Amino acid sequence: MMESQVDRELLEKIADLIGKPVGAFNIRKDTGCDGRQSTENIQITGKTDGKSGIDIRIKDGTKGEQCHIPVIITKPGIQELVYNDFYIGENCDVDIVAGCGIHNCGGEDSRHDGIHTFYVGKHSHVKYTEKHYGDGDGTGGRIMNPQTVVYLEEGATIQMETVQIRGIDSTKRETKIVCGKDAEAVVTERLMTHGDQVAESDMEISLDGDGARGRVISRSVAKGTSRQVFYPKMVGNAACFGHVQCDSIIMDDAHIESIPAIVANSTEAQLIHEAAIGKIAGDQLLKLETLGLSPEEAEECILKGFLA
Amino acid sequence: MMESQVDRELLEKIADLIGKPVGAFNIRKDTGCDGRQSTENIQITGKTDGKSGIDIRIKDGTKGEQCHIPVIITKPGIQELVYNDFYIGENCDVDIVAGCGIHNCGGEDSRHDGIHTFYVGKHSHVKYTEKHYGDGDGTGGRIMNPQTVVYLEEGATIQMETVQIRGIDSTKRETKIVCGKDAEAVVTERLMTHGDQVAESDMEISLDGDGARGRVISRSVAKGTSRQVFYPKMVGNAACFGHVQCDSIIMDDAHIESIPAIVANSTEAQLIHEAAIGKIAGDQLLKLETLGLSPEEAEECILKGFLA
Repeated sequence: MMESQVDRELLEKIADLIGKPVGAFNIRKDTGCDGRQSTENIQITGKTDGKSGIDIRIKDGTKGEQCHIPVIITKPGIQELVYNDFYIGENCDVDIVAGCGIHNCGGEDSRHDGIHTFYVGKHSHVKYTEKHYGDGDGTGGRIMNPQTVVYLEEGATIQMETVQIRGIDSTKRETKIVCGKDAEAVVTERLMTHGDQVAESDMEISLDGDGARGRVISRSVAKGTSRQVFYPKMVGNAACFGHVQCDSIIMDDAHIESIPAIVANSTEAQLIHEAAIGKIAGDQLLKLETLGLSPEEAEECILKGFLA
Repeated sequence: MMESQVDRELLEKIADLIGKPVGAFNIRKDTGCDGRQSTENIQITGKTDGKSGIDIRIKDGTKGEQCHIPVIITKPGIQELVYNDFYIGENCDVDIVAGCGIHNCGGEDSRHDGIHTFYVGKHSHVKYTEKHYGDGDGTGGRIMNPQTVVYLEEGATIQMETVQIRGIDSTKRETKIVCGKDAEAVVTERLMTHGDQVAESDMEISLDGDGARGRVISRSVAKGTSRQVFYPKMVGNAACFGHVQCDSIIMDDAHIESIPAIVANSTEAQLIHEAAIGKIAGDQLLKLETLGLSPEEAEECILKGFLA
């Protein structure tokens, strides 16, 4: 595993990785494998069906283990479509950290499309974190289109946290989660766009089993002339509870659309959504300025807190 | 004006009319005009451009006056498309009561499509009420597709209250309101569907002027196997405030979708929406039952309060 300064910076940004990860990992760099380690309970293997990507198999009862699968692109002109499939046994409690960093210093677009599918066994708990980050001073676009599909069996839960920190010119996120009996999905989305970036997030949580619970918390900041569109959808097909909450801060000449949908197909479904779009409250800025912060520092402080 | 028992019942249901209305009115019955009265300030004239419908012209400064324009259909097999245009001057304060009642005892559908357009002058206040009701024991459908378009000039307001009481087999409501500087639109929608009825409500409030305010309060009850879809959209193009609130009670095997959109095109736009779908709370029913109501009475009492 040869690491440059660029690699190190990207890996730290997207996966909080400093040095070699603990536990199972797979590092994908510029379409190749730059390091892989399985453990007794977590087996990572390359796809054998001709597709790009990996299979991750986690044994029944695996608890307290981590799995890191960062992707970095350090060259312009790379286009890739990657399939990562997670087969998680029963009664597990695992922490999966994905993420993608693109460093583009060239004139051509670099693009990563990742399709992650999770089959989560009965009573297993998964924490899944995905950070996206772009940098580099090239004119080529940094593009990421992540697709996440999750099937939760009885009593299984996923806590999914996605963060698009900065530097992604165009993203289209698609997330679909199917919750079985007593399963729970909690999705936290944090997104910031600046310049003339565009971001779209489509999400559907289907509460299929009795006792299923879904919660979406989406927070976004749009600066410059960037554009954001959100379509979170919560479908209740059983005795379930779903809650969607979207809050956005709009700045400069940005554009934000928030179009959540709640769909009840069962009398026993209880669904709620809330959304708000507005600028930073003037009194919050003023308060921080009276504490000695400059207007810019006050703004940054508020945004940091909002996206934390 | 010849009134049958059916006419009287429909007119009372949809326009609270008992006997001849006070002030200006136009009663449309089975595609014909069944009575019309203008006043000094409110002129009602039939369309002369070949279309069905009327023009209502209200003079500047008209205050405290009412205008009733109910439509009743008492025969099966009637299909009509009617245009009613309201030209409301400046500094008015008027109360407009529309509404449509269909009594269908036959095998063929009866259908009323009404397109109402309001041009509301500066600093005028309009209260607009629209009630829809169907009855009759025929197998023919009772169908209503109302379309309402409102242009509010500076400082103008509209308070729009729509009620679909019962008996409408299929409805597609379309409402579009454009708010100028300091204009305000408050839309209250009440809708109940039962049996295998379908209802769709599309609404768009465009807050174009600084100081514009929009508020949508939508409450619905879906019983039986009925289906409801709501698309309220609030667009902020200026320093404005918009709030969308949708609450639905789902019963039996009904289906409800609530898909509000908030769209911010200005940093100074402040937009909020909230929505909830659920069944009647068990503790509310229980409380009323302990007060001596039967389960059915308790349910009816709660629904009445919810849709009041």
